[in-house]
Amino acid sequence: MADNLWSRRHILSLEDFTPGDYQTILQTAASFREVLSRRTKKVPALQGQVITNLFFEPSTRTRSSFELAAKRLSADILNFSPGSSSLKKGETILDTAKTYLAMGTNLMVIRHQQAGVPAIIAQEMDRINAGVGVLNAGDGQHAHPSQALLDLFTICRSLDAANPQIQHLQGKKVVIVGDILHSRVARSNIWSLTACGAEVHLVAPPTLLPKHFLEAFNRPVRSDDGADDSGEGAIATRQLHLHWQLEPALENADFVMALRLQHERMSQHLLPSLREYHQQFGITRERLQACHPNVKIMHPGPTNRGVELTSDLMDDPQLSLVPMQVTSGVATRMALLYLIGGVK
Amino acid sequence: MADNLWSRRHILSLEDFTPGDYQTILQTAASFREVLSRRTKKVPALQGQVITNLFFEPSTRTRSSFELAAKRLSADILNFSPGSSSLKKGETILDTAKTYLAMGTNLMVIRHQQAGVPAIIAQEMDRINAGVGVLNAGDGQHAHPSQALLDLFTICRSLDAANPQIQHLQGKKVVIVGDILHSRVARSNIWSLTACGAEVHLVAPPTLLPKHFLEAFNRPVRSDDGADDSGEGAIATRQLHLHWQLEPALENADFVMALRLQHERMSQHLLPSLREYHQQFGITRERLQACHPNVKIMHPGPTNRGVELTSDLMDDPQLSLVPMQVTSGVATRMALLYLIGGVK
Amino acid sequence: MADNLWSRRHILSLEDFTPGDYQTILQTAASFREVLSRRTKKVPALQGQVITNLFFEPSTRTRSSFELAAKRLSADILNFSPGSSSLKKGETILDTAKTYLAMGTNLMVIRHQQAGVPAIIAQEMDRINAGVGVLNAGDGQHAHPSQALLDLFTICRSLDAANPQIQHLQGKKVVIVGDILHSRVARSNIWSLTACGAEVHLVAPPTLLPKHFLEAFNRPVRSDDGADDSGEGAIATRQLHLHWQLEPALENADFVMALRLQHERMSQHLLPSLREYHQQFGITRERLQACHPNVKIMHPGPTNRGVELTSDLMDDPQLSLVPMQVTSGVATRMALLYLIGGVK
Repeated sequence: MADNLWSRRHILSLEDFTPGDYQTILQTAASFREVLSRRTKKVPALQGQVITNLFFEPSTRTRSSFELAAKRLSADILNFSPGSSSLKKGETILDTAKTYLAMGTNLMVIRHQQAGVPAIIAQEMDRINAGVGVLNAGDGQHAHPSQALLDLFTICRSLDAANPQIQHLQGKKVVIVGDILHSRVARSNIWSLTACGAEVHLVAPPTLLPKHFLEAFNRPVRSDDGADDSGEGAIATRQLHLHWQLEPALENADFVMALRLQHERMSQHLLPSLREYHQQFGITRERLQACHPNVKIMHPGPTNRGVELTSDLMDDPQLSLVPMQVTSGVATRMALLYLIGGVK
Repeated sequence: MADNLWSRRHILSLEDFTPGDYQTILQTAASFREVLSRRTKKVPALQGQVITNLFFEPSTRTRSSFELAAKRLSADILNFSPGSSSLKKGETILDTAKTYLAMGTNLMVIRHQQAGVPAIIAQEMDRINAGVGVLNAGDGQHAHPSQALLDLFTICRSLDAANPQIQHLQGKKVVIVGDILHSRVARSNIWSLTACGAEVHLVAPPTLLPKHFLEAFNRPVRSDDGADDSGEGAIATRQLHLHWQLEPALENADFVMALRLQHERMSQHLLPSLREYHQQFGITRERLQACHPNVKIMHPGPTNRGVELTSDLMDDPQLSLVPMQVTSGVATRMALLYLIGGVK
Repeated sequence: MADNLWSRRHILSLEDFTPGDYQTILQTAASFREVLSRRTKKVPALQGQVITNLFFEPSTRTRSSFELAAKRLSADILNFSPGSSSLKKGETILDTAKTYLAMGTNLMVIRHQQAGVPAIIAQEMDRINAGVGVLNAGDGQHAHPSQALLDLFTICRSLDAANPQIQHLQGKKVVIVGDILHSRVARSNIWSLTACGAEVHLVAPPTLLPKHFLEAFNRPVRSDDGADDSGEGAIATRQLHLHWQLEPALENADFVMALRLQHERMSQHLLPSLREYHQQFGITRERLQACHPNVKIMHPGPTNRGVELTSDLMDDPQLSLVPMQVTSGVATRMALLYLIGGVK
């Protein structure tokens, strides 16, 4: 199904993913996307294998997406949720994971409110030669690789539905607006988008996007790029650009990705109010005038309509890629489970 | 499987269901009831299709019944419950539904504490040409069509197990006792039973059955019917009769359906006490003397034994259709999912 | 799959299980253990049958184990949990069970915080000739037969992986340490281990192991056995020995099974502190010196590391049978579901 050989046993973060990795994932996801448009949407790829969803942080949307992906690969699924669990009884997270391993788990999909938990579990699984794959479904503010990969697939499909390729991303301008500082979605997207040659522009109020944010990202310098601190309220390094005002960032943008605003940011005094946030950073039809005529809007969901973007944009099928992101999610997660499920 | 063509994409309420619709459902349910008595109880009818249970109001019994129906049709199932959901994160109900649509849902089974939510979702699905069917699994005090349809199937099977037909209902007297005012089960049963030619008698204290209740039901007048306010504490219009005392209502009854009494009705001062309710409106063996010798008792469950009816009646296999209602529920829901799943 | 005929419709406790019963279960579990090591881990044994998990007491580990066992037998599964259930609405437990029966349940797996509930349900099912099997998945402090049976299977496999037999247990010394008084795991293990010829030594502080504890167990006297109250803080009857100090009990032990310590025992003033408990009754590498050189450690999980046993013991693959217990759990539960599922 994929051109080059896949050898990663785990998908924990995208920091070291190569363009070849991304291309393999896109091709595999595209095959499964095609399966999903058939009448019988199932393939026997993972028949007899057990996929366990260890969602220490509750989630409906992502868990359902992984669950459906697993079902369509004909795997058996176990769901762990901490509500009625052994964790309350004093068991460690590693012991919980090992219990599901001993039951016969082949793949673990792990979400945890603390950064690093999926990596710790993966490391332990390798140490004991468990032979299971670990897929990070979101850990703290660290990474959410499957979201960034479905975003990548969505972007490339929107550029060429028949043949989604990372080459299409070259030189495209992607603007990410919102609570960058606390967002694992933003972090994972920065790694994937810059690795595939896009120009990534981050926009947020300074409380949610400090200057030092760039330091963590060590991306190859593109020739037409350079650090600048031009006084228009923006700072850039290599392919990554920081903005504290929305309007200049949107200029000629190809994709505008709005992030979810957590209500708790208000109580933490990082934002004055939802209304004020919307006035300064909300995506509106008027503001999109500055973008490229074919601009597309994205959002990882769930959306606060009227905060991150206006309702009419969300519902405009010409502009919004949001439903395509959800559909791509199932195909992309099928691809990820399939790829790491095939590693021996 | 059905004689006449089914063309409804959604089942939201029974207001406009025709005798032909009911007959089609009975025939389809009867076929599936036969499947359930085989050794292998599965059919591949909905293989590869995704049925999503969106239960905004928690439920165990109804959800399990739909889940089993879906499994026996070989569908894949996604379960959404609001406990750990995006709703808490500010997402609208329509956006939740559209997310599950974009994941690949073909049929949505929706329960919500507010009347009208399934209809609103169905309307939006049609507006965007989603091609999915919506099945109302209970919305506020409005409707619970699958319950009324399984009740209809149960009644007709009890009259002729081999060949359940709506014609059997002609002229039968069905008494519904309990909290009529707040009951979506009563409302849906009134539509279906009167449409199939039964005489429906409603019994409750005046706080739970106001005179104006009849106004909502606009059923064809039967020749032997007429409004009367005879002073015996009853009022009738067309095939629908209201009673504020139990004994006169039970006279010559063929079916007595007791409704669940919500404990909260006491705190709302609509009822003095469970004990007093039972004394006035509880079904007892003694009171059943007035009924037709072949009278059957029904209850949608869950039952408060000793309140709505006495324990010995509930456990009398000659009298109680309660277990048959549950079994009919799976067959009827298979029929409904099958019928709307086949609409293109 | 089994040599002798299995005729028990329910598995409620192990009090009256014969050596032949245990041998049948071991043989059946061994066959399924072999299935689990194949590439396709499924058998069609219970295809079309419905297994309902009625877990009135919440559980993740045991429910997942039963769920996976059921899936690998190709059964359909319904999960009932009391969180969002009819019980809150006043329904009796028997009515809940009968509702799932009427939906088409063939096997019920029941956990309840009150001793006796699975037996009461089984009795009622037989009374109404329901033809369903009931499997007790833990009831109060009474019994947890599937745990004791998986422990038996684990012990016998550790003695002879190719051919697990109860004969291997003859004369083996099994030490059970911990909160014996409140443990359904201990009770069920005492029945099975003594019936298969092991010498069982119970160790706990007197608050968690009163002298009269022995009275409930009426096991055949072995020739080399006799009641003794020798003053070394121990009392013994037949194959069952009581100790209030750990060290003497461990002497020459073949298996040491630590029980989970519930944190609530502290608030009930039955124990001074976790630290003190560990000092007196915690399993450590040093203390294991007194045991047989091939001693193995067991724990039903979830474990409080550093309380019941030290972390390094738990992680020592030479010593710890804990992961094997979990794996055996799936195979043993497949065997139990298969055996009672085949009773007509």
